[in-house]
Amino acid sequence: MSSPPRERAGRRPRRVADRLHQLPFKQPRHRLPAAEVVSADELEMIHDASLRVLEEIGLRIQNQTAIDLLRHAGAIVGEGQNVRIGREIIAQALTTVPPRFTLHSRNPAHNIVVGDDYLAFATVGGPPNCSDLDGGRRPGSQKDSRNFIRLVQSLNCVHSVGPAVAAIDLDAETRHLDTVFDLLTLTDKVFGASAIGAERFNDAVDLVCIARGVDRAELARTPSLSTVINTNSPLLVDGPMAEGLMACAAAGQATIVTPFTLAGAMAPISLAGALAQQNAEALAGIALVQLVRAGAPVMYGGFTSNVDMRTGAPAFGTPEYAKGAMVTGQLTRRYGIPYRSSNVNASNAVDAQAAYESQMALWSSVLGRTHFMHHGVGWLEGGLVASFEKMIVDAEMIQLLVKTMEPMEVTEDALGLEAMKEAGAGGHFFGTAHTQRRYETEHYTPLLSDWRNFETWQLAGSQDATQRANTIYKTMLDAYEKPPIDPGIEEALEAFGARRRQEIGARG
Amino acid sequence: MSSPPRERAGRRPRRVADRLHQLPFKQPRHRLPAAEVVSADELEMIHDASLRVLEEIGLRIQNQTAIDLLRHAGAIVGEGQNVRIGREIIAQALTTVPPRFTLHSRNPAHNIVVGDDYLAFATVGGPPNCSDLDGGRRPGSQKDSRNFIRLVQSLNCVHSVGPAVAAIDLDAETRHLDTVFDLLTLTDKVFGASAIGAERFNDAVDLVCIARGVDRAELARTPSLSTVINTNSPLLVDGPMAEGLMACAAAGQATIVTPFTLAGAMAPISLAGALAQQNAEALAGIALVQLVRAGAPVMYGGFTSNVDMRTGAPAFGTPEYAKGAMVTGQLTRRYGIPYRSSNVNASNAVDAQAAYESQMALWSSVLGRTHFMHHGVGWLEGGLVASFEKMIVDAEMIQLLVKTMEPMEVTEDALGLEAMKEAGAGGHFFGTAHTQRRYETEHYTPLLSDWRNFETWQLAGSQDATQRANTIYKTMLDAYEKPPIDPGIEEALEAFGARRRQEIGARG
Repeated sequence: MSSPPRERAGRRPRRVADRLHQLPFKQPRHRLPAAEVVSADELEMIHDASLRVLEEIGLRIQNQTAIDLLRHAGAIVGEGQNVRIGREIIAQALTTVPPRFTLHSRNPAHNIVVGDDYLAFATVGGPPNCSDLDGGRRPGSQKDSRNFIRLVQSLNCVHSVGPAVAAIDLDAETRHLDTVFDLLTLTDKVFGASAIGAERFNDAVDLVCIARGVDRAELARTPSLSTVINTNSPLLVDGPMAEGLMACAAAGQATIVTPFTLAGAMAPISLAGALAQQNAEALAGIALVQLVRAGAPVMYGGFTSNVDMRTGAPAFGTPEYAKGAMVTGQLTRRYGIPYRSSNVNASNAVDAQAAYESQMALWSSVLGRTHFMHHGVGWLEGGLVASFEKMIVDAEMIQLLVKTMEPMEVTEDALGLEAMKEAGAGGHFFGTAHTQRRYETEHYTPLLSDWRNFETWQLAGSQDATQRANTIYKTMLDAYEKPPIDPGIEEALEAFGARRRQEIGARG
Repeated sequence: MSSPPRERAGRRPRRVADRLHQLPFKQPRHRLPAAEVVSADELEMIHDASLRVLEEIGLRIQNQTAIDLLRHAGAIVGEGQNVRIGREIIAQALTTVPPRFTLHSRNPAHNIVVGDDYLAFATVGGPPNCSDLDGGRRPGSQKDSRNFIRLVQSLNCVHSVGPAVAAIDLDAETRHLDTVFDLLTLTDKVFGASAIGAERFNDAVDLVCIARGVDRAELARTPSLSTVINTNSPLLVDGPMAEGLMACAAAGQATIVTPFTLAGAMAPISLAGALAQQNAEALAGIALVQLVRAGAPVMYGGFTSNVDMRTGAPAFGTPEYAKGAMVTGQLTRRYGIPYRSSNVNASNAVDAQAAYESQMALWSSVLGRTHFMHHGVGWLEGGLVASFEKMIVDAEMIQLLVKTMEPMEVTEDALGLEAMKEAGAGGHFFGTAHTQRRYETEHYTPLLSDWRNFETWQLAGSQDATQRANTIYKTMLDAYEKPPIDPGIEEALEAFGARRRQEIGARG
């Protein structure tokens, strides 16, 4: 009996997952040119404007310790927690920012370099909702969160986990303990931890110390964690964010200072203005990190985009976004700070718009020579949703870019004159010795793209890329294998969580 | 009575079309960096390999006039129409290739420059099928062909018509007369004419002379037409293609010499080999153009991609394609020949794959500093289908790229410090004077992208980008206005067609 031509999407055996084509886990290196969207003079104008913002307008910082640190460094503190930061404070801080550092996983094979010409991709970070074609759009649950983490473990092109979606079904006070436990047991890749307030971040630090069998001093020398600190643009750093930033810096972990500068809403409507404000807020945050702990790893997060001026809705992957990503690259290269960008879009569905807006973000970030692509896989709907299908679409798009950045072989054999002689005028190359020697590895084999002719594709069910991505992500989950972990360590992680849950519960 | 919240897609009044956001008709200028994927030495290796191909292997050219022209220039003609072309013949030909020329429309406002840092976008050229969501995939008809031409007239970002789809319902012997008539009356933009054999191309030349009111000598001085000449890779130029090339060159119109080098099938499987063969075939064709008429406008068509080695299916928008597009840019810059590239994909649906493969092609072509983007809008299914919805998706993607290439304003006012002072820490910019002055024109307004929040989008019918593109293309067709044409000229065009139809029919 022959098998039916159309199979229903669903659970597939592991051998199917083995046939999914992935590049090996590896960090790509930049080879495309760095874009210079603004001239050197214009870059200096943006730089200087941001310093004037810090000196003349200042930031409101809602945390006394942070204010004191800055005041001690020479900043002028005024009414209403206003802190004006002189350019010499920024210049001094920039001298201690490491241009490159390594994030250490509990599996050293999954360590990643942040800086130089290295590029790393992370998942979407923490939307409240998730979606797939089967279950639709819904608040994230621990089940969903775990499945995203499992997918990251399975997707070679992803180097770091967001985590992808918030586990809304768990107690908000102790959710971070469950999530970090999942991140330390379901994957052995590096991950980002929440730093809304110091306490949560410090729990993550303790847990990762247990997982890696190191103390806090060693963890500071060999950082594992990253955390995104958003300034509350314009020109505000709230208490929990300031506290989280200082906790991360104090622990010697990687702070990703990311102003939330949407032009026209939280920043000037003009791109130059939004970037000047982004730069002011980023430099202030980075200076604070260095004042807490000189030499602490830090990234400059570029997130400037614009809003729809009719509705206020945020837009992503726009020309303004793309130019912002490239100019941010120019700024970070000027300062020698590792550059975090994003793979973003504003679409409500995993459709052509989601793909082309994401591509705008991906290419412009690469031309900006980004080091760390946050929201690299799974982001949908302006960041309100982590999409399972978008994980796969993004993974394919990333693989395409990564292969595009690889060097091209130009050798006498690759130039193939012998093959041309063998094929002859009007002949074909399928059977030439040259083709036979090379065909298995010469070209990129897609994870998601379908190149079958229309008739074959139609017979197989006319599935579009999003429907195929649905099948692929479920196939990957079926084939998922938990990475090995010492049972004693897993027990210790559980015990820490239990103790902390009790402590936090007792407080409530 | 209030109007219903959901309207069925379909015919919309003209005022809706007026609300569709388009950039003005204008040629973008390159501002992104030119990618150097291979080193100068490697580029010379590819260049030299292609000259060795021409000298040592040669091309089979199935046309005696072309062979005689090359022989007269010094080429060595062997058995089986084999023509070996010495590098001095190529070098001589390259001295007369114009690095820049203008294509003249019957409406001078729609003339386009090919060369320098100018970029032009053309439609998909001549697939046998077309598709939209309403009618599905079908052989192209004159009705469809006309609708594509009307759409191009309406889409400001498109500078040249393919024509987009073949009118399969018309007599194949006289179809070109109907199509060129439609191209000269339904649009006043420049267009490509078929040059499979000389006769069809010469009919197009006569028709365009009538439309512009010029003779052949003036048309040669101010060319209007372009035509794609594909070599029959590997290393073959068939009779009709050679004849068409020579007819186009003799008339002083723009020949686009485009080898059909799919790595692994019609070219060596290695990208360097496929590019060496592409370069050999392109240079041979370009030399032949210059031998027919020194100084005739010509473009170097880069179309190298790869095939799926399991099935032989062509693949597009791949890493190999993208690298090929960028290296072709390096080659054309070395020779000073205007560069034609393509916006291609292999998807069977207007889905995420169609968008991301097209984006790979678009960005790599732009980084290759292409001058003429053939297949810029509408291409689907590896070129077998012209899609109405893809026309709109591509137009949006092109507009996004065009705006990204525009300079960014860096002025004291754009830097927006006054706005930041006015908004204040934690404030918002919607109401600032700076925003009020600028909001109408500051950011790109999309043609297709939907930035509404999920709930609003869902209430409006949850239409994905492809469904919205369907509504937009029909709205544009409803609002289409035929560009003015002198009735006497239109009659003369008709009379020419009638006479030629009779002549051709009398022959049959």
